[in-house]
Amino acid sequence: MTEPTTPHRVVVIGSGFGGLFATKTLRRAPVQVTLIDRTSHHLFQPLLYQLATGILSEGEIAPPTREVLRRQKNARVLVGEVTGIDLDARTVTSRVLGRSRTTPYDSLVVAAGSGQSYFGNDGFAEYAPSMKSIDDALRLRARIFGAYELAELEEDEAARTALLTFVVVGGGPTGVEMAGQLAELARRGLRGEFRSFDSASARVLLVEAGPALLNGFGERLSARTKQSLEKLGVEVRLDTKVVGVDAAGVDLHRPDGSPERVRAATKVWAAGVAASPLGGLLAGATGLGTNRSGQLPVEPDLSLRGHPEVFVVGDMMQLPGKPAVAQVAIQGGRFAARRISDRLRGRSGADTFRYHDKGMLATISRFRAVASVGPIRTTGFWAWILWLVVHLMYLIGFRNRLSVLMHWAVSFVGRGRAERTVTLRQAGLSANEAGLADHADEAGVARQG
Amino acid sequence: MTEPTTPHRVVVIGSGFGGLFATKTLRRAPVQVTLIDRTSHHLFQPLLYQLATGILSEGEIAPPTREVLRRQKNARVLVGEVTGIDLDARTVTSRVLGRSRTTPYDSLVVAAGSGQSYFGNDGFAEYAPSMKSIDDALRLRARIFGAYELAELEEDEAARTALLTFVVVGGGPTGVEMAGQLAELARRGLRGEFRSFDSASARVLLVEAGPALLNGFGERLSARTKQSLEKLGVEVRLDTKVVGVDAAGVDLHRPDGSPERVRAATKVWAAGVAASPLGGLLAGATGLGTNRSGQLPVEPDLSLRGHPEVFVVGDMMQLPGKPAVAQVAIQGGRFAARRISDRLRGRSGADTFRYHDKGMLATISRFRAVASVGPIRTTGFWAWILWLVVHLMYLIGFRNRLSVLMHWAVSFVGRGRAERTVTLRQAGLSANEAGLADHADEAGVARQG
Repeated sequence: MTEPTTPHRVVVIGSGFGGLFATKTLRRAPVQVTLIDRTSHHLFQPLLYQLATGILSEGEIAPPTREVLRRQKNARVLVGEVTGIDLDARTVTSRVLGRSRTTPYDSLVVAAGSGQSYFGNDGFAEYAPSMKSIDDALRLRARIFGAYELAELEEDEAARTALLTFVVVGGGPTGVEMAGQLAELARRGLRGEFRSFDSASARVLLVEAGPALLNGFGERLSARTKQSLEKLGVEVRLDTKVVGVDAAGVDLHRPDGSPERVRAATKVWAAGVAASPLGGLLAGATGLGTNRSGQLPVEPDLSLRGHPEVFVVGDMMQLPGKPAVAQVAIQGGRFAARRISDRLRGRSGADTFRYHDKGMLATISRFRAVASVGPIRTTGFWAWILWLVVHLMYLIGFRNRLSVLMHWAVSFVGRGRAERTVTLRQAGLSANEAGLADHADEAGVARQG
Repeated sequence: MTEPTTPHRVVVIGSGFGGLFATKTLRRAPVQVTLIDRTSHHLFQPLLYQLATGILSEGEIAPPTREVLRRQKNARVLVGEVTGIDLDARTVTSRVLGRSRTTPYDSLVVAAGSGQSYFGNDGFAEYAPSMKSIDDALRLRARIFGAYELAELEEDEAARTALLTFVVVGGGPTGVEMAGQLAELARRGLRGEFRSFDSASARVLLVEAGPALLNGFGERLSARTKQSLEKLGVEVRLDTKVVGVDAAGVDLHRPDGSPERVRAATKVWAAGVAASPLGGLLAGATGLGTNRSGQLPVEPDLSLRGHPEVFVVGDMMQLPGKPAVAQVAIQGGRFAARRISDRLRGRSGADTFRYHDKGMLATISRFRAVASVGPIRTTGFWAWILWLVVHLMYLIGFRNRLSVLMHWAVSFVGRGRAERTVTLRQAGLSANEAGLADHADEAGVARQG
């Protein structure tokens, strides 16, 4: 499979968990790896909500990919948006600043991850940003802290209430963690900073279309998560659908089918996942279909049907019963990498990917998390310690671990938020996008004396 | 001067050194302080270049003003762009999201600081950002690290050289510190991360129109600073004027009058200072003139002529022989605050502001700074220790001090840059502004295979 003189060329698309772990697993293989991603960083997505709520900085959860791979001399990192994959010519096309580059491969690992799905209501995105990238989190940070700033200026009580209402859509781990942090921010983090209202009066709603939070953790943990969030002051709305989102608020369908309007300046969308459009592109080229989430069916060894040299891992692959968690991507990336090096070395190796379920974890508040790890199903302090250890373990780099630990001490033992600074440009962009500037009258928000 | 029932109302414009220290000095005075600024943070401007070069995070050098003033119950913080000051009605008008607010005052402290001056060539700003706000620094961070990313993609050697050329305009402390850090980044920070070039091959030019760097530190220190920078690999160009700046580079006038064209993707402007436009506004209202830098003449007690209730402090005030450093703003802010409380308490107090020159400091590289403090005029390690202690001392908050110290260890003892993460949006905005996308052909940069 290799040419005699040039090493086997592996192209990895995506610098998330799948792509990064595939690349790292190939560090001693006789290959030349090219990792292509449109960003220059590896994003530790499970902590994105802490960037949005001012606990951590960009650098802590998103180290530059080339710094992570500095010592791995058989890997190079290229920034570029992948626009095409030619399965016959075995090339990947990527673009930066309007210029295209074509990179040939002998083996390809597609790990482009997923974006947020608005279930066909893409218009919601403007008003209810998702939580998938650093930009998303910075946008939300600007909106969250901006809403408090505007509330301090607001003299109309109804308008102030709307500014101090936060709606999180989606009761999965991201939604639960975000709602918990928004409540902690209101009740602890911002206490005493405002003169015209008490930050603890802020309302946080968590809206879930299904009958339970944290679907997949089991009934008991779901119920206890709901209780814990309610104790924190979060209003949990189950069996409730979001049918409209605009600058001024959200329209809900209650469980009994009756409509409800909630005026809220800040909305967060954490409800659906849609695999990278590269999935659809590969589906078209191979005649395979994707599922509702845009995921591709893969062979048992994670390769693309008819293309044993192409692997699809992480959020993009469709495997029955597989949750969209980092572990699936990490294990998939490692498996694909081993498959490539096994072939090159003429070893047989494992030809079927088996996902080792390491369980699921979600934080609710400081010192409190939910854990579903093997037979252990618990909520509370020990679950939180487990959450802390596991997250520190998978963070990249000693430096970031130390720095994150310090910021957690600041926010959880203390009550501060070290990284809540919003720039003028971020605030302005965010207010424009949120429709606060244009729709201020209609929305009744941001009115000043 | 006070009404019997309502406390004396002080409005402070600006949350920089002058405004913040004025507000804090009033904490025990029988007044109600309203601090108005268009941003929600107190910016520690002397470390802005470390944000731009990936050493520190936004939160570390710009804590939220209302968090700093949380316990000062006689102070409130309002976000707003000040658009007018009515000296007769004694009101300040500010705007947010198109809505105006009018805030009445009994005493006013105007500490709106300064922006960058392009000496009439405002068109340069697009291509050579200044270093005055967090947004400026983030923009520069995106350009600096983006240029390296594009260089890794570039196959044309001349174009790559242009991407790896950094021009800093202005040989004052900011320019010197920025040039030094850019050189350290190239020689140490980024070593080993790129596969198609050696980061140490990057060129850093420091262009100064006058005959010496760090004007004000004295001839000997200027010469030694130049030597140190040159040892680091910075090309120092004295007596050299920048006559043109565009997407592809800069046009210089050499000391002998001959023209020189330097192709450079990244340009930083640190050359001139222009006081806030509020200076001109007050000048118009009082019939006073401003100087070339837009600064207002003030009475010996820092008040505005004919308006003993209005104080002008920091970069906006015109005092002979006063450098534009943080100490002038801090001492001016404190003086104005004491003047207000002395009056209210019927104490005479000092009626003439005297600036206590605490000296000047600038870093060149790790372990190396220049100090001109009283009789001490030195460069090297001990100057650097002094620089470190003084900067930590004036940083706001124990938490930020600890965190900054840790990041300094990362960058100066180690060689990493913990906070160099650039988002896709920042990179895109920055490339657009820099003209990289539009002028890529002309500039010869960002060309891909």
